[in-house]
Amino acid sequence: MSPIRDPIHGYIEISPHIEKLLDTRIVQRLRNVKQLGWTNLVYPGANHTRFEHSLGTYYLASRLGSELSEEERREIEIAALLHDIGHGPYSHDSEDIIEEYTRRKHDDVLFLLENPEIATILDEYGIKPSAISSHIQGKTKVGQIITGSLDVDRMDYLIRDSYYTGVAYGIVDYEHLLRNIRFYDNNIVLYYRGLKSAESLLMSRFLMYPSVYDHHVGRIAGSMFVHGIDAAISEGDMNAFELQLMDDYELNERMRHFNKYSAEMIGRLNSRNLFKRALYVGFDSVDRSIVRYTRIHKDIEREIARMAGIDSGYVLIDIPKIPDFRERNATVLMENDQLKYLDDVSNLVKIMEESYSSDWRMGVYTLPEYREKVGRIARDYFNVEKVPKQSKLEVV
Amino acid sequence: MSPIRDPIHGYIEISPHIEKLLDTRIVQRLRNVKQLGWTNLVYPGANHTRFEHSLGTYYLASRLGSELSEEERREIEIAALLHDIGHGPYSHDSEDIIEEYTRRKHDDVLFLLENPEIATILDEYGIKPSAISSHIQGKTKVGQIITGSLDVDRMDYLIRDSYYTGVAYGIVDYEHLLRNIRFYDNNIVLYYRGLKSAESLLMSRFLMYPSVYDHHVGRIAGSMFVHGIDAAISEGDMNAFELQLMDDYELNERMRHFNKYSAEMIGRLNSRNLFKRALYVGFDSVDRSIVRYTRIHKDIEREIARMAGIDSGYVLIDIPKIPDFRERNATVLMENDQLKYLDDVSNLVKIMEESYSSDWRMGVYTLPEYREKVGRIARDYFNVEKVPKQSKLEVV
Amino acid sequence: MSPIRDPIHGYIEISPHIEKLLDTRIVQRLRNVKQLGWTNLVYPGANHTRFEHSLGTYYLASRLGSELSEEERREIEIAALLHDIGHGPYSHDSEDIIEEYTRRKHDDVLFLLENPEIATILDEYGIKPSAISSHIQGKTKVGQIITGSLDVDRMDYLIRDSYYTGVAYGIVDYEHLLRNIRFYDNNIVLYYRGLKSAESLLMSRFLMYPSVYDHHVGRIAGSMFVHGIDAAISEGDMNAFELQLMDDYELNERMRHFNKYSAEMIGRLNSRNLFKRALYVGFDSVDRSIVRYTRIHKDIEREIARMAGIDSGYVLIDIPKIPDFRERNATVLMENDQLKYLDDVSNLVKIMEESYSSDWRMGVYTLPEYREKVGRIARDYFNVEKVPKQSKLEVV
Amino acid sequence: MSPIRDPIHGYIEISPHIEKLLDTRIVQRLRNVKQLGWTNLVYPGANHTRFEHSLGTYYLASRLGSELSEEERREIEIAALLHDIGHGPYSHDSEDIIEEYTRRKHDDVLFLLENPEIATILDEYGIKPSAISSHIQGKTKVGQIITGSLDVDRMDYLIRDSYYTGVAYGIVDYEHLLRNIRFYDNNIVLYYRGLKSAESLLMSRFLMYPSVYDHHVGRIAGSMFVHGIDAAISEGDMNAFELQLMDDYELNERMRHFNKYSAEMIGRLNSRNLFKRALYVGFDSVDRSIVRYTRIHKDIEREIARMAGIDSGYVLIDIPKIPDFRERNATVLMENDQLKYLDDVSNLVKIMEESYSSDWRMGVYTLPEYREKVGRIARDYFNVEKVPKQSKLEVV
Repeated sequence: MSPIRDPIHGYIEISPHIEKLLDTRIVQRLRNVKQLGWTNLVYPGANHTRFEHSLGTYYLASRLGSELSEEERREIEIAALLHDIGHGPYSHDSEDIIEEYTRRKHDDVLFLLENPEIATILDEYGIKPSAISSHIQGKTKVGQIITGSLDVDRMDYLIRDSYYTGVAYGIVDYEHLLRNIRFYDNNIVLYYRGLKSAESLLMSRFLMYPSVYDHHVGRIAGSMFVHGIDAAISEGDMNAFELQLMDDYELNERMRHFNKYSAEMIGRLNSRNLFKRALYVGFDSVDRSIVRYTRIHKDIEREIARMAGIDSGYVLIDIPKIPDFRERNATVLMENDQLKYLDDVSNLVKIMEESYSSDWRMGVYTLPEYREKVGRIARDYFNVEKVPKQSKLEVV
Repeated sequence: MSPIRDPIHGYIEISPHIEKLLDTRIVQRLRNVKQLGWTNLVYPGANHTRFEHSLGTYYLASRLGSELSEEERREIEIAALLHDIGHGPYSHDSEDIIEEYTRRKHDDVLFLLENPEIATILDEYGIKPSAISSHIQGKTKVGQIITGSLDVDRMDYLIRDSYYTGVAYGIVDYEHLLRNIRFYDNNIVLYYRGLKSAESLLMSRFLMYPSVYDHHVGRIAGSMFVHGIDAAISEGDMNAFELQLMDDYELNERMRHFNKYSAEMIGRLNSRNLFKRALYVGFDSVDRSIVRYTRIHKDIEREIARMAGIDSGYVLIDIPKIPDFRERNATVLMENDQLKYLDDVSNLVKIMEESYSSDWRMGVYTLPEYREKVGRIARDYFNVEKVPKQSKLEVV
Repeated sequence: MSPIRDPIHGYIEISPHIEKLLDTRIVQRLRNVKQLGWTNLVYPGANHTRFEHSLGTYYLASRLGSELSEEERREIEIAALLHDIGHGPYSHDSEDIIEEYTRRKHDDVLFLLENPEIATILDEYGIKPSAISSHIQGKTKVGQIITGSLDVDRMDYLIRDSYYTGVAYGIVDYEHLLRNIRFYDNNIVLYYRGLKSAESLLMSRFLMYPSVYDHHVGRIAGSMFVHGIDAAISEGDMNAFELQLMDDYELNERMRHFNKYSAEMIGRLNSRNLFKRALYVGFDSVDRSIVRYTRIHKDIEREIARMAGIDSGYVLIDIPKIPDFRERNATVLMENDQLKYLDDVSNLVKIMEESYSSDWRMGVYTLPEYREKVGRIARDYFNVEKVPKQSKLEVV
Repeated sequence: MSPIRDPIHGYIEISPHIEKLLDTRIVQRLRNVKQLGWTNLVYPGANHTRFEHSLGTYYLASRLGSELSEEERREIEIAALLHDIGHGPYSHDSEDIIEEYTRRKHDDVLFLLENPEIATILDEYGIKPSAISSHIQGKTKVGQIITGSLDVDRMDYLIRDSYYTGVAYGIVDYEHLLRNIRFYDNNIVLYYRGLKSAESLLMSRFLMYPSVYDHHVGRIAGSMFVHGIDAAISEGDMNAFELQLMDDYELNERMRHFNKYSAEMIGRLNSRNLFKRALYVGFDSVDRSIVRYTRIHKDIEREIARMAGIDSGYVLIDIPKIPDFRERNATVLMENDQLKYLDDVSNLVKIMEESYSSDWRMGVYTLPEYREKVGRIARDYFNVEKVPKQSKLEVV
């Protein structure tokens, strides 16, 4: 097969085992799943897909796997290509709700790997679906390449998301990083001389979160979408298991014909007619006992809507997860052959998690006309002491 | 409104009249219309949309219009933003079939400009829909900025398509070009000193055609898609007028439930399970009297299918249009203040059209298993003298 | 004058007052002064000059100055263009030794601004040399644009140095930063929404220091160069005042004919025949009372050379300055219109200075053949407790 | 040895034989030889050196040579690294005058390859200097990689010159080209599927010539420089053999102290105080019998100066060579396994040489104050029929 042209990595050579997997419906579906969900409502260039990202992850895994045995390398390449096949439509924007209803995380993909379409191909190479599943979940040593403290999944998505959004923060010196991550004594380690590029990867994530991944417009859109999906499931328009295997096209179009609320939500999203922030506050202003992460907070939403005298479904509460920070556990091989944890070696890493918290915001969203009223009530409800006056400056 | 971040042009400032138009459903629909249709089956990064391209065209028009009166500049900005609202789903891949059934070209957008959603906004600024329509069709002097011999539509799409496909050919020194296109004596002229950048724009198109726009895999996909649409219209699953206003999502999903043939085609496209080339020949090998451009050639297709003993619908004939070449009529302002035509000034331009022909290919596509048989019959049918032996090398 | 083409900022338009200054010998000299001194021995692409950087700084200052009065903006543009005219050959590599002998810092440029070549031009616009001098030294409010807590000098050099070395760390979202630095109540402030781009600027510097500015090979070369210059001044081959106004060409060529030691040093530098590290240790391993920053440590060098039984001049001690960190004093305009210091708003900034220290290294350099012996003696001399075993891995 | 970081190709791995050669004075001299001579007077970023370009050429040759035997590949890598060691200071700007006096072209490097510094290293690998010399001159089959109809020398310099000048024209899809140039039946051929990237390489050169390589300001500077050198040789300040082995630094500095005329020329160049065009005409306007290429035309210059009543040395005549066009002889491997010449396959190539001619200009340069007078006389002297009125628009 001819190599595939990728704007990020150039020509990507396709090994025979990869080619067969590429041709399956399970992988091809990812062509119609946007990598960043509704983020293109903020950054119009962000239309890239899980398919490209999977190819890019395969490419990086293949390079990093050059020291492995042929068998291990093949497994790791396959795991990299398939690591995201469990993503539902609009990727992270449907992730939590799928998990809530199906109890499956997006990397619980064993059921897909055991699908004959995939399993037959794996079997040709004597590979068990469970082996690939373990790699994807980072439960094996080599699987650390894909899902570990410094993995190729992140390297690819940071660069790729940066390229398509046009936000410069995602630029990572991944060549330098790749050259300094190696297997040492059967573990993945970072050579000390590569410390700066690892720090740069972390910084990149740190900067991308507020600018891209947690941009408030994207959060609002995601929240409306989740509520639209939730209504559709409750009303019996679809179930969460079929949802997970839809692509963006199917879900988007079908939602237009689901119950009235779901249809309104997708209609608003498709015409960028969005809810606005009634409340938007950081950790300092919030009673921590309330802040428990879950994607939907129906009871509180209903209560605030009731107090504001508006229909339920028009007050959305959004409590983002704090990004995990497994990089701090990366193992660094020092110049004197000692092994240390990354956060023992780098001050920067040590304080990074703390910083994530300072960017965190809880949002309450509603229709523009209810903004003030809902804001007032929500502020009381959550005991927000001092909400800083909304600036006229919008984050760009 | 905050400026919008674009990976190509950086921050794009949004004028108030543009902001209102951006918020319409007619413009927002373009978010779900891929700029290059099915080209992402060849270049997985090519998921960009008509929306971004429209923004980029507005940006360039606004820069080029800095010498115009405020009123003219506003009109030209609006025309640039709206120039593609008539595109159907998958852009060019549905263009010809829509035209065939509706007799509307994709730039016959007066009916959309007269839609109250748009017309009300235009009216606020005392602008008539017909004025915008004339600009879009390049019938006015200032309209040449958008649709002319050297226009911002092309500048934007060449750079943008290059960025998202990863093919380097589309790189145009548009800064230099913009600085050397000016209004002179009320006409748009290219200053002679800008000749090289104009030649570079032309070269860019010349190189992008075979590599991207006419890549054989994209042609095959487009052909399957057109035949699927045609069947759907014939069978009454939809009509061409509603088709034009669908987005990719709606068409893609609904086709899955249309008649059996249409459903098969979209299924194949969604899983990249494509027809193959049975015949692929240039002008030299074809009886020119047969080569008449139209998107569907049902009679011939049926005849060849019949001769091969296979079902109609599994032999597709593809006769691409030769790209028009209006750039040669660009007016160049020489250093001695004379005006000349571009093709009188540049040898390169003189020979460009000829070269387009040499890249032209007629294709006959079918299922892999019928490839040889159909190839043989088609070769006879079209009196192909000497078909060069298919190389084992695939175009990348 | 035609705009000038710059690989970083594109076309730079030249105002009339700038054009006149550009044509002076004092500014043209900067064409022959490398921005990063001997860093091209590490990164072969790093041949860019103070001239380009001065143009880039002017460009950014002009953009940031768009809110100023015409007079203020003109002054700030001029100050930006001229801010580096006091740099001696090889920029920072001759900076400290020039300061040691002349007591002039590289931004003490009043004597050059009062040179008739410049002063006459300033006088045409009614500008006093002392006004420009104050701006350059950051002593005025508007001068903060050039030399302040978040200044255009740094923005330009980080991006530029990154471009020419090929090290990705210097990529800063300067468009976003420029849009969020403004005059507020007559002071330069950073809008809170621009915090991430300011943090990215700081991160950039933080990552560029060990990789580029303090790369050990560059430090060794710089150290050899400084010792060669020092010998030349001591021997009367030149004086430090004329040195400051030489360009790289003159100094490099003339040194070949100076005293034997100076000639050897420049010969070694020109053929990249460099000293090696005998000792290279961080703060933790060094007796802090010894570590006093000054460019040359003759007495200690002589003593160690004596103990090793080798000629003086072949043991070089290098104690780098810790980069200053005035960014922490940048003023941030919060969303509630309060003003805060950057390091009160950003955890990241708070810990940055600390991190600079952890990258700091003292070096003792000598000829390869004396490496071990000198290392042993120096280790004793400086009471280095535990020097980590040199890894075989070289920092790239 | 650690890989070297190059802004164009990323990390360049250094083979052991290359490392030894890199460390020689003969190669290190190239660090101080600007790739584009005085072009930085037009494009301030153009300070890159023959050293980087040599590394880049080695890198590309090594990739293209992956199909060769180990011995052949080593030779070709060495030849690529050393192909420019014969360049004098300021590269092409001193090339013709060196050839005129020494009868050595810049690729007559056998005398340097036989220098023990190089020869000893070659000998370690059993390589004869004459073998390397033949490769460099493109006299061997594998030497075609470096100096042939489609060679890596050109690929590298087009991209590199584009990067450092900031002119977008030099962007070549070299990955695609490299993948489609192969040894076939012991000859270098271009696979037909790579045609577009080869055409893009040619277009690139075609566009770079007038914009960069033959920009009139660069031509004027080069002409002044050549006349300054010529005077220095005539006056006995240096000879052409030593000139060839100087670097930019030595020549630039020493010229300041040569005879009065040479010193004036270098002084003017260093402060960008240049001659201006008195005449600038294309082939159509010139009596072809006069147009014979040679770098200096002393008799005519003197005669025109005499007629204008000004000192000899202040009228310079510049008759550029037309770039050779050996690409048309590249061999293309067609899909039917036939071999054809590139210009039989590509219309574009066929007309390219013609187009080069249309960009050609003869220039007569003088001091600004003599511009009109000299222009008039030169116009008569050369029988220029109709000189187009000089436009006020300067080429940027």
